[in-house]
This record gives sequence, structure tokens and C-alpha cells, in this order.
Amino acid sequence: MQTLRNYQDTIAAIATPLGEGGISVIRICGNQSISILDSFFQGKKKISTAKTHTLHYGKFYSDQNELLDTVIISIFRKPHSYTGNDVVEISCHGGHYVAQKILNTLLSKDIRMADAGEFTLRAFINNKLDLVQAEAVADVVHAKNESAYRSSIDQLNGKLSVFVNSIRQQIIEICSIFELQLDFSQEGLELQNKNESIEKINSLVKTLEQVIATFTSGKLIKEGIKVAIIGKPNAGKSSLLNILLNEQRAIVSHISGTTRDTIEENLIIDGVLFRITDTAGLRNTPDEIEQQGIERAESAIRNSDVVILLIDASHKQDQSDFELSFRIKNLISNQTHLIYLFNKCDIANVRDPNIEANFSKNVFFISCKTKEGIEEFKKQLIQVALPNYDSLSSGMLINNLRHKNLLEKASIPLNNAIISLQSNISEDFIACDLREALDYLGEIIGIMTPEDILNNIFSNFCIGK
Amino acid sequence: MQTLRNYQDTIAAIATPLGEGGISVIRICGNQSISILDSFFQGKKKISTAKTHTLHYGKFYSDQNELLDTVIISIFRKPHSYTGNDVVEISCHGGHYVAQKILNTLLSKDIRMADAGEFTLRAFINNKLDLVQAEAVADVVHAKNESAYRSSIDQLNGKLSVFVNSIRQQIIEICSIFELQLDFSQEGLELQNKNESIEKINSLVKTLEQVIATFTSGKLIKEGIKVAIIGKPNAGKSSLLNILLNEQRAIVSHISGTTRDTIEENLIIDGVLFRITDTAGLRNTPDEIEQQGIERAESAIRNSDVVILLIDASHKQDQSDFELSFRIKNLISNQTHLIYLFNKCDIANVRDPNIEANFSKNVFFISCKTKEGIEEFKKQLIQVALPNYDSLSSGMLINNLRHKNLLEKASIPLNNAIISLQSNISEDFIACDLREALDYLGEIIGIMTPEDILNNIFSNFCIGK
Repeated sequence: MQTLRNYQDTIAAIATPLGEGGISVIRICGNQSISILDSFFQGKKKISTAKTHTLHYGKFYSDQNELLDTVIISIFRKPHSYTGNDVVEISCHGGHYVAQKILNTLLSKDIRMADAGEFTLRAFINNKLDLVQAEAVADVVHAKNESAYRSSIDQLNGKLSVFVNSIRQQIIEICSIFELQLDFSQEGLELQNKNESIEKINSLVKTLEQVIATFTSGKLIKEGIKVAIIGKPNAGKSSLLNILLNEQRAIVSHISGTTRDTIEENLIIDGVLFRITDTAGLRNTPDEIEQQGIERAESAIRNSDVVILLIDASHKQDQSDFELSFRIKNLISNQTHLIYLFNKCDIANVRDPNIEANFSKNVFFISCKTKEGIEEFKKQLIQVALPNYDSLSSGMLINNLRHKNLLEKASIPLNNAIISLQSNISEDFIACDLREALDYLGEIIGIMTPEDILNNIFSNFCIGK
Repeated sequence: MQTLRNYQDTIAAIATPLGEGGISVIRICGNQSISILDSFFQGKKKISTAKTHTLHYGKFYSDQNELLDTVIISIFRKPHSYTGNDVVEISCHGGHYVAQKILNTLLSKDIRMADAGEFTLRAFINNKLDLVQAEAVADVVHAKNESAYRSSIDQLNGKLSVFVNSIRQQIIEICSIFELQLDFSQEGLELQNKNESIEKINSLVKTLEQVIATFTSGKLIKEGIKVAIIGKPNAGKSSLLNILLNEQRAIVSHISGTTRDTIEENLIIDGVLFRITDTAGLRNTPDEIEQQGIERAESAIRNSDVVILLIDASHKQDQSDFELSFRIKNLISNQTHLIYLFNKCDIANVRDPNIEANFSKNVFFISCKTKEGIEEFKKQLIQVALPNYDSLSSGMLINNLRHKNLLEKASIPLNNAIISLQSNISEDFIACDLREALDYLGEIIGIMTPEDILNNIFSNFCIGK
């Protein structure tokens, strides 16, 4: 990636996905993007004289004057474009071959291939988007379920940016009074009540902490909730999977993992993505061949956000059930939720009175045969994985580790400022703490963000965005 | 697919390929396409009042007034659009989820999902494209190599249409004189010389036959030339493949066939696609397990356009070589070209004087080790597969079975007309033959083309085109 100062040259890339479709779009950005088309495009009028926000039908020719395709040209003159520079989009027939021919023709001139995310990076540099919004562009592109899409559109629309700016504004107000007070400190004037200031800063810290706390949920919503279903043979694991999957067959996909033997089923419940790993049965076995499958199951359990232990309720639980439960508990981390799911409740006439006593929480009863309890279980699955799910859609939600780290970093000097105030330390130290918090918050939206961090953010984009 | 009379309703589809990219485009066509956007789009001005060929930035909302994305709207008012109807294109963030949300919102109104090829079908109905050009649109989308792309762009640009129209015009001229003559037949006037007419029609038939003869090449260029490389073990088959493939590694792809065991290597030489099937060695074996591999090799030979028999030139050819050659000759059809390729010429100090005598034609010598003869062999491979390759780029080329069949059908009444003229049969029979030829030629470009044929052509398109 180039340095930030060097963003006046003209870049191009195919902006539509690879593959066959009705339309492909080649995007060009930079000072040469409009004038260069006069060499290749023949329509009713010269593109270089065209007004902004107009469309032009015509023929696109190669250097050797071969007809490449009939195209539609879109003109966006600066600053009224996605990037803030002059932008041209060439809409040609779908199919990658045509688009590649047109792109290659452009690249033979003074145009270079755009880096990943470079169009959006330019939009950021030209203040068309702040950094959170720019990051949200990539999230919108990658969104594959309603919750992830909704939260990325919220960010793109500035929800987090508005929040960060509002916190910064409040800090600036408090800080400026302290800085003003420094000038009057000789006169012994107190411009603001100390306790009031402590209360204000404390309230800001609490607000930041609430948002930081949404990170776990935000990340789960963005990336999907990893679920492992564990059970002894014949517990009904396949039936459970089928019931969950069949009901939404249209949006189910089978994703092969890194190894051929790991199959992941994608399941969307109420707009939330669950990535269910199909594990081999877990049982003690001397068989060395089976041991390999069990190791993979154990690895799936370790990497899961939720482990569902499926138990046959029609049999009395014996020693092996408790051993299995114990073994799973040893494998999982504190962040992983363990659910005890009792199946075959239709034929288990008497619920074992020990069950609910033995398992402290997250115990649910279903019958895959009669579908009793399935709907309720699906609701509970979301509640267990995302305890604050109901308030998520209305509130602020973060899902980006960079944002979380910077919010945490901003909290520290704010807390220091409170301690300093309580200890009657000089105003200039307090102002210094508040300024530090401002810088961290500013880095979230792209004020004072180091260049290497910017490059890292945009290099994760796809080419053409 | 709907009947042709019912193409005023409004249709929509995602026009860009599935997958992640910078931009996705939703295309809408029909009377409601512009006005409907006022319900969903909020920009600087109302879309319903926007001029044709203008671009509009704004926000797209759902029925429930949720923000779905920031979009760019392109307006094409009839008749100045791809289809000839009002057309709107919504350019949203890439990623299929967003595009699907926007499409679903549109489909909840009085808009229906477009059928495959329906936009192009409307362009045909509204005389924006003739039928050959419409068919070429699908070929451009599917083109994956230079020759296929070039020939489809030629068709899209009207090369075949111009040719067909010119032939039709000449027939109409001859025919109208015969019809005129009918009116004057009582007076015994001869408006045109009989021999001149025979010569004119004969010349047209010859021209049609020349174009019909390009079909084999055209089809090979469009679909790729199927090549099987056959050879005894250690003949250098892998070395040959590697040399051919390595030189153009960037555009090589491995395509899995219908069965797991068939691997096809794609190779592009001078813009022409060769689809090389990797076969098991062919030799007589009592081993039943090996027999299965040999059957697959035989099937590959039967389905090939070119079979390369690779022979180790450093050994004197023995009985088994001639048996292998004989066996291949029995498997292949008259249309398949057999090439005898002698490898290891660097260590074969003396070329066997019998070789060229034994094999009548298509004998070439290479050394995979020193690369001697490889470049020449590649040129010869194209010449053998496409004997008229050099003239193909400049001349007319057809690759569509429908076109070929109709050109052949048109030749028959033209030949009949010649016979009738020679036999002094009445002018009205001759005019009738000529009219029949006109109809067949008209069917190529979409004049008088039956509706079921139209539906069949467009249903092979992708959705959104």
C-alpha cells in the first residue's frame, strides 16, 4: 500500500464479484479517470466534457482499436463521488473475461491497479467516511445474516461514530473548563464543582463500559456462534440437527472446514448465525482409530461458544453420563456456555427428579419425534449465547476488536482523572488525562490514527471496494 | 416464461454475479420501475422526476422504513435503455446479502422476479437487438478465452446479422423480379436473364456453404478443443503436459469432471482453448483393476477432437506401437484428428526412416528435455484442429447450431430454385422457393421466429441479463 500523501494518481479495479452475471463494473478513480476515457470510448459525446452524475452509452475500444464491448459509463466528478476524487464506473456485459479485457486496456495507460480497499481508503482520506464507517463497508460486504448485516449498516450509517463523537464532545467540555481554570488558578476561582466533575466523568466511564461489554455479543453476531452438539450414540443428535436444519432448508449451507473430515452446518435462528460442528460421538474407547475422531470432537468443544450435551431422557442417567459431562466441563473455558438438552421426552414418562438438581442451569427438555420443546429451545439457545439479545437491536453494539481496545484504553485515563480529582491533584494533570482519552477515542473514528494501522485496516478489504 | 404479448409488467433481478465484491447491481425494468423507487429511496430529488441517463445518490429503505443501504440509482427512460422499457439500476454495496434485501423489498411491491434472460428478451422484442445479437450477449458472458470472446463480440456487433441481411436483400431483389415477371408473363417479357439468375443464386448458395463450413471451427473455439494425450508409460506424457501448462501457469485451471477420476487441464494457445484430458496409459493388460482406467482412456479418445499419440523416439518402434496406433484409429471418428508426436528427439540420434513412411500425416518431432520443436508443435496443434484458423479472425464464423441448421435449411430451397430454373419451371414456383429461403434466414435474426424457440433461447441465459 502507498503512503497516504500519494493518493492523486489514477487507479482502477473490477468492482463486481468474479463469476458470470448480467453486468460487471470496472471502477476508476483519480485525476485521469475521466479524461482517459476519450481514448477508448465512443459515444454520443466526449466523456471529458460530460457533466457529473450522468450516464453514457457507447462502445469501448482497445489500444489496437478493437471493439471490446458496448458499455455504459457513469461519471462522478469530484467532490461528489464515493471517494471524493473523480470517479468513473464502466458497466460492461457480465462475465469476467470482458471486464478483465477492459481493465487491462486501462492499465496499459497511466492507470495502476487499485490496492485492496483503496477506493474506501480514499473516501476516508477525503472525509467522505470516518474510519468506523469505512470499516463498516467491509462488514456490509461480508454480512451473511440479518444481525451481522443490521449492525454493519448501523455502523455505516454512523451509529458508533455519533456515539464516539458525543463522548468526545462531553470530555472536551469538561477538559476545556479545567484548562481555563489553569489560567485562573492564581485567583483561586473554582469554575466547576469538583464532585460534579467526578460524577460527569464517572458517568462517561460507565457508558463506555456498557458499550465495551457488548463486544462479545457483537463479535458472535458478526462471526456466527460456534456450537458443538455432543452426545452418546443414539441420543438423537442427527434428529436434532435435521429438525433445526429442515425448517430453514433454503438458507442452509454446508461449509467444508480446513480438513475434509470437519463439516460445519450453518443455521440461522431469528437472524443470528449458528455454526454447528458435527462431532463424532464422545466415549471412552481403547480403539486407536476411533481416538482420532474423538480428538477432533474435543477440539470442536474447546473452540465452541456453546456446547450442547444431548442426553437420552428415556434412559436413567448412569455413571457414563456424568463422566461425559465432567469431561466436557474440563475441556471448555469460562466463556463457553454448556447446555444440557434432554431428548425423547415423549417416551420419558417420568422425568428423573435428580436431573435438574444435578445440573445447575441451562437444562432444557425436547422431543425430536413430537417436536415438543423445539421452538422454546431455539429461543433459549439465543438467550444463552447472547444474554442481552433483546436489547441489542436497539442499543449500541461493537464487534471490532480495534474499537473495543481503544474504548478500553480511553477508560483508563478517564479513571485516572477521577482518582486525580479525588486526590486534589493539579488541574493540568487532569486535563492531560482527559486529552489522552480524547486521542484514543479519536483514533476509533480516524482522527490521529497512525498510518500503519490505516494500511492494515484497508488491506483486509476486497479489491475494487 | 410468459407469452410475448405480456411484457409490460415490472421485473427485477440481481444483475451482478453472486459473491463478495465492491458493488452489486439490482436491475429493474418496466412501467413501474422508476415511480416505485419514490417509496424506498431518499435522495436530493424524487426519482420519479429525474431525467434519463442521470445518477442519484441516496438511501434505500425497506417497507418498514429500515435503512437497507446507501445506493446510487441509474435512470434510463424508455426508449433509451438496454431493454427499450424504463430501466433503473440500483448500485449498492457488494455482498449478496445487501442486494438480496433490496431485491426482496422490491418484490414485495408490484414487481416480479425476472426470468432468466428476460431483460435481453425484452431488448429483442423492442428491437434493441436482433436475435443473433441477443444470443451473442449470453456468449459474451460465458466467454473464457480470447477466440470465444472475439467471435461473440463480433456477433453482438452485428457481423452475422449484417451478413444474413445482405443475403436476404439479394434474394429479395431476385425474387421481386420473378414476382414482377409473373404479372407480365402473358406478354412474354423476360425481365432477367435465366442464366444470370442461376449464377446469382448459385453464388449465394456457395457463400452460405462457406459460412456453414465454419461451424466446426466456431464450435471448437466456443467450447474448447478436446485433446487426449495417449502414450505408453515413460513416453514423456507428464513432461509434455508440464511444458505446455507451465508456460501459461497464470491462466491454467483444473476443472473436475463429472466423476472424481477425470481431471481436465485447460490450456490456452494463441487465444484458443484446449481441454486436455489426462488419460491412464493404454496397453494390453490382463489386470482387471487396470482395465477400468483403460476404459476411461478409451472413452476420452472417443470424445476427443484431437488425439495426440506420444511416442518415445529414442527406442525403435516395435509391434506394440503399431498395435496401439491401430487401436486408437479404431476408436476415433472421421472428425477426430490423430497426431503422432515423437518425443526425446535429443537422444534419438537417428530418426527411424520408416516413421514418416508409416504414418501418412500429422507427424511431429519434439524434445521435452531441450524444448526443441515445442513452439512449432503448438502452432501445428492449432493448424490440425482448426485448418482454416488464419482466415477465421477476418471471416464470418458461426458457432451456434441453430444458425447452422437454418443456413442449411435456407440452402435447400435455393438449390431447388436453381433446378427449377434449369428445368424452365414456372416463375411462381421459383418465387416460392426463394420466399422459403428468406423465411429460414429471417428466423436466424428473429424475423418470424416461433415463440417456443425464443423461449428456449432466452431460458439458457442467467438471471439478471
